[in-house]
Amino acid sequence: MLQLISKKNRLTDGQKSFGYGAFAAIGVFLNFERVNVMKVAVMGFGVVGSGVAELLKKNAPVIKENTGADLEVKRILDIRDFPDSEFAPLLTKDFCDIENDDEIEVVVETMGGLNPAFDFVSRCLKKKKHVVSSNKELVAQKGFELLKLAEENNVNFLFEASVGGGIPIIRPISRCLAGNRIDSIAGILNGTTNFIMTKMIMERTEFSDALSLAQKLGYAEKDPTADVEGLDACRKICILSSLAFGRHVYPNEVHTEGISKITLDDVEDADRFGYVIKLIAQAKKLENGKIYALVSPALVKKESMLAGVSDVFNACLVRGDMTGDILLYGKGAGASATASAVVGDIIDCADNREKRKVFGWKESVPGLIEDYRKVPVSLFVRIEGSKAEKEKVLSLLNPEKIFENSEKNEISFITDTEPEEELQKKLSLGGFKVLSSIRVTDY
Amino acid sequence: MLQLISKKNRLTDGQKSFGYGAFAAIGVFLNFERVNVMKVAVMGFGVVGSGVAELLKKNAPVIKENTGADLEVKRILDIRDFPDSEFAPLLTKDFCDIENDDEIEVVVETMGGLNPAFDFVSRCLKKKKHVVSSNKELVAQKGFELLKLAEENNVNFLFEASVGGGIPIIRPISRCLAGNRIDSIAGILNGTTNFIMTKMIMERTEFSDALSLAQKLGYAEKDPTADVEGLDACRKICILSSLAFGRHVYPNEVHTEGISKITLDDVEDADRFGYVIKLIAQAKKLENGKIYALVSPALVKKESMLAGVSDVFNACLVRGDMTGDILLYGKGAGASATASAVVGDIIDCADNREKRKVFGWKESVPGLIEDYRKVPVSLFVRIEGSKAEKEKVLSLLNPEKIFENSEKNEISFITDTEPEEELQKKLSLGGFKVLSSIRVTDY
Repeated sequence: MLQLISKKNRLTDGQKSFGYGAFAAIGVFLNFERVNVMKVAVMGFGVVGSGVAELLKKNAPVIKENTGADLEVKRILDIRDFPDSEFAPLLTKDFCDIENDDEIEVVVETMGGLNPAFDFVSRCLKKKKHVVSSNKELVAQKGFELLKLAEENNVNFLFEASVGGGIPIIRPISRCLAGNRIDSIAGILNGTTNFIMTKMIMERTEFSDALSLAQKLGYAEKDPTADVEGLDACRKICILSSLAFGRHVYPNEVHTEGISKITLDDVEDADRFGYVIKLIAQAKKLENGKIYALVSPALVKKESMLAGVSDVFNACLVRGDMTGDILLYGKGAGASATASAVVGDIIDCADNREKRKVFGWKESVPGLIEDYRKVPVSLFVRIEGSKAEKEKVLSLLNPEKIFENSEKNEISFITDTEPEEELQKKLSLGGFKVLSSIRVTDY
Repeated sequence: MLQLISKKNRLTDGQKSFGYGAFAAIGVFLNFERVNVMKVAVMGFGVVGSGVAELLKKNAPVIKENTGADLEVKRILDIRDFPDSEFAPLLTKDFCDIENDDEIEVVVETMGGLNPAFDFVSRCLKKKKHVVSSNKELVAQKGFELLKLAEENNVNFLFEASVGGGIPIIRPISRCLAGNRIDSIAGILNGTTNFIMTKMIMERTEFSDALSLAQKLGYAEKDPTADVEGLDACRKICILSSLAFGRHVYPNEVHTEGISKITLDDVEDADRFGYVIKLIAQAKKLENGKIYALVSPALVKKESMLAGVSDVFNACLVRGDMTGDILLYGKGAGASATASAVVGDIIDCADNREKRKVFGWKESVPGLIEDYRKVPVSLFVRIEGSKAEKEKVLSLLNPEKIFENSEKNEISFITDTEPEEELQKKLSLGGFKVLSSIRVTDY
């Protein structure tokens, strides 16, 4: 039974003295009841942070009943004042109030952005506090570093809320599917763009009108670039592929295209071929060991579960060697959904108080990411032209499906599967006036 | 730091002596490396059991890399002989070889049925071995008892594989959604019936032909009663509602109807109203604190994610107060998918070797389950008749939608939401010749 005790490597060197050991032994002897309340600090009292504080207050008895975790918010960090908040007495503007409070065992980071989040989270981990983050930018950029720091200090760094809001994604990938080899992941990971695409597909709304509506409804920000151009989805697929394939995939390595160039003509012709267009974030382990990671609009078969994901909902499809396709679906954002994911992680910290959850997430290596242009893919292409161009397409590209829209003087087709650069070469060889070229998924 | 040691309540009374404590203290002092290999026994070398053995062998390095768990199958129990199996040296017919082997820390139960599974599992728990089960009958009937026994012996009793094959369902409900109050659950939890319904919906195949096809493809057993009449789905919804609502829901308390009476006329008229018919297992916490639990065919809106679940796939929709609707989808059965769920649980045991995962699953109480007839519901009804009956339906039932099929001399309609017994009273009051009456869901 020696190992029961010897694994307590959270003890500092000073504590690892025989004196301490003997003292601890008295604890075993007397079988002291463990003090079970776990003090939590929240950094960033915005939408998610305040949601966490409220949820912990409201559902504390249920949480204790169902999981045994007894949680209490002790401190909240924010530079702003909230005089009318019920949590006002807990608020501080000084990070040191959290950093130096040894009673605080878990710190929730819902500040967003890299600075000062990275500095604060690092310092909390060094103080041997568990950290739970909902900050996708932080995890996508610094995940490996922070997990390593957590490992060195034998604490947890958890981030379920950084992808897919309240949808359980991180834990299923790292735990439930742990007996699997994950082959690929494809997700609708951004609610704003999915709302826009849904309006374009279901109601044939123009992109710009759909975007305005999303802004009016509060689904899109005034500057919608991060959503519309795929940056948000890119961060999320980086987190998921790092977890699934075990090496850090950085956002700047992932080719990213947004939906701003998608037109109703694309939507209609895709429909004709039995597809819908969605912003898909995907990652795949290639046979050469490299990773294919990409964010772009893509055609999804109407029968696919991904095609049924409407409005601001998100979904993540995980293809495993043992499980086949698994889909995890739900609200990808929103204060209460995201707060609920954060609280799930806090409960996990309470469950693993003196123990670290292992993620197989190592540093990147050179050449980890394959050049997306070299990977075989099928394209949906829309070009200007009529009979003559159609003949040329048929002879050059041998498409699976082709449609001639003589009214618009356009031809749409879906190519065979070939390396993307080969397909692009053929398109330029044909001298076609390409109006759109969108990838076709096999999900 | 006293609690670090004092929580080791897996120690026997004898070990809780000062002598042991001091000895353990030396362990802390010397910081011995913990012996990490975890020996596993498998009871039942059928499809799932052999899948687990193979998966552990094949993916052991990946599992160790990603989770830190070092797993090794030491013994396999089966009454049959497998002379040609690579695992033949591990096979035994004597349960005591597992029960009395102190090196075995985790026992996987994939025998199915109540006997001798219940006896064997109980004895393993009493020997302070963690148990992982894929046996839905065992968990649905004996879940509370076994969890209590696990609690008394401070070991884990885990059962992710008992519902939904390789789909992560149990863990998300008990962990990821732990910060939530779960309001209701609705699932397509039986692949066989979903395959049959898919054939009826997509290809307008008659029930009996679809069943024959399912049998031919190996999706349905020779005696398909347990699947077709909803018993299998009933066991699964019992497990899920016990977990979600915290009290054991027993299979004999859940009103269960199968799909054998569904006709193509039902499918067609449901289609006309914008619905598909699925076998839905559902559970809901009512405002009076009681639980509404039911397995029956039900109309699902075509836009619902549940409607998109085709063929043998399963899905479980969880409605939480914080998360909104979450859907977990995938292959609900099959050796490798189920084995992968079992292995996920084994890894969890390795992660929680000296610690028990708490489920909020208590014994049932009298009056826990509400009489389903008293719960408001909307019904899809098909009756014989024409104009006169239509008038009567309109005046008596004020339906939301109505359709007169004069060719077949039939009327179909969807009622308002009222307690089911009130609706049935009105139907009998009208003296209608009711051909079908199927519940309409709001999922």
